[in-house]
Amino acid sequence: MPAYPLTLGIDLGGTKVRSALVDARGRVLQTYRHPTGAGREEEAVVDDIVAAVEVCLNNADDRAEAIGVGVAGQVDTAAGIVRDAPNLGWEDFPLRDALESAFDRPVVVANDVRAITWGIWIHGAGRGVDDLVVVFVGTGVGGGVVSGGRMLEGATGTAAEVGHMTLVAGGRKCTCPNVGCLEAYVGGWAIAERAREAARAEPDAARTLVELAGSLENITGKIVDRAFEQADALALRLVEETGRYLGAGLVGLVNAFNPKRLVLGGGVIDGVPELVDHARSVVEAHALEVPRAAVDIVHSELGDTAGVIGAAVLARTIVE
Amino acid sequence: MPAYPLTLGIDLGGTKVRSALVDARGRVLQTYRHPTGAGREEEAVVDDIVAAVEVCLNNADDRAEAIGVGVAGQVDTAAGIVRDAPNLGWEDFPLRDALESAFDRPVVVANDVRAITWGIWIHGAGRGVDDLVVVFVGTGVGGGVVSGGRMLEGATGTAAEVGHMTLVAGGRKCTCPNVGCLEAYVGGWAIAERAREAARAEPDAARTLVELAGSLENITGKIVDRAFEQADALALRLVEETGRYLGAGLVGLVNAFNPKRLVLGGGVIDGVPELVDHARSVVEAHALEVPRAAVDIVHSELGDTAGVIGAAVLARTIVE
Repeated sequence: MPAYPLTLGIDLGGTKVRSALVDARGRVLQTYRHPTGAGREEEAVVDDIVAAVEVCLNNADDRAEAIGVGVAGQVDTAAGIVRDAPNLGWEDFPLRDALESAFDRPVVVANDVRAITWGIWIHGAGRGVDDLVVVFVGTGVGGGVVSGGRMLEGATGTAAEVGHMTLVAGGRKCTCPNVGCLEAYVGGWAIAERAREAARAEPDAARTLVELAGSLENITGKIVDRAFEQADALALRLVEETGRYLGAGLVGLVNAFNPKRLVLGGGVIDGVPELVDHARSVVEAHALEVPRAAVDIVHSELGDTAGVIGAAVLARTIVE
Repeated sequence: MPAYPLTLGIDLGGTKVRSALVDARGRVLQTYRHPTGAGREEEAVVDDIVAAVEVCLNNADDRAEAIGVGVAGQVDTAAGIVRDAPNLGWEDFPLRDALESAFDRPVVVANDVRAITWGIWIHGAGRGVDDLVVVFVGTGVGGGVVSGGRMLEGATGTAAEVGHMTLVAGGRKCTCPNVGCLEAYVGGWAIAERAREAARAEPDAARTLVELAGSLENITGKIVDRAFEQADALALRLVEETGRYLGAGLVGLVNAFNPKRLVLGGGVIDGVPELVDHARSVVEAHALEVPRAAVDIVHSELGDTAGVIGAAVLARTIVE
């Protein structure tokens, strides 16, 4: 028996929409993926979302009470507007209104990792904790923070953009207006960029990477993961550096937020789970004593369902 | 007529205790300083605090309802224990109990910049704002964060140690276990260290600094301020670098906390107020668009009374 209320979670990425019907215990009852694309107009993407949702709703006798959507980018949840979603090429798009018209039930829209943080807090590795930091390392790096039992929102709803905290002043160019962001070192795109630079500088050391990728220009973060599994020396060095940068960033987060638990997830972490141990050891050596003693650093249990479960939990916050 | 309740604020530094009787509008009715010292035993420092408080209380017919104390270091406010105060050489000292025995009225103990943040939020440049970040740059760098109308505490009360967020991964050694902290670049001790390094590397350029200080080893942050006022080229460069580092750190704070207002204060900022404009221009160029548009960056109005006023406001939180 599903536990009610049921809600529908949507994880809107740059290349696909994933939807899931989720019950009150966080169990996924239905799930569906539909392709979408950054080249498409806003309205076409909304149609893709509608298609992904309708499959789930039809299979569930239309019983979802509300819909939550997680979007990579800066989202004004109170206004229901996606302010800036570079993957989709969106600026100031009123996604909530578009979906409420389509589905005739309440919709809530949030930053994707904010939604994931809801899922981790209620059903995942952050259960039962009042002070939680979530860092998701995928192509980009996003975050969510619960402090004193409340989700941090900030003045305009974009708090916890932890991927865009300066980690190396004057350092690598980020995709945002800053330089030296955490994301510019450990995000999937940045790992790929660092790997290609290393391959250009040391062609001999990069033979495995280039072979796996087909060409130097095709080296991606996932190629680095595969070479790492084969114990390739350059890949080991790149992963070690990634762990060092991630750890240095987490030291700052532990000191700034003093969380009881810090949960790591996302494609880069799932690809090389050893990064969790590495980052934890950096925090143990370098964080301030009191917050260091208070924090557990763990890997998210939710895998790639974190996005849809989180969005569904977010939807529950507006019907409960 | 004073506005009631009256409370007593104590700013406990490494070389002096400052006390002030403050009314409910944040006006200082009495203030007093008493020397203390890091070389002294805990009990002797408590005696110094008692001496500083008694002068204020005697002049006010004993009317303070509660006492607040700000201490540079990590403080467990819930337990009333100073966990780690390097300036005083204290670890795990139960200061609240010691002072409640002495004064027979409620006492609250907090990190000094946490107390200052209370003062700025209620009576200073953060009035009326629900999302506030305070960064105080003195010998060390401390912070306080209000988010959604609540002071951020963290799991063990040490949230907002923004001076110890990594700003340059693998960078300068900090006084804490980390390297590359914001404090290790812009704290007064770090500015002095950077100035002495520059003076060693470029003795000709450092003539003004050495003359003002008497010797290279005596160059301090305040000496850099004085040389800056004389438009000395090396001091200008050092201040410019300090502004760049401070700005890079504030970009991270604006992205992480999405505050409505960011208030800068402390001896380094008061010494060279131009740092506020410099840091603001870095944030305008480099922060994410949405949080950048939301934030005002301003200089604290409270000057060197921020510590005692803040501690007195903190005391008011336990009697109101």
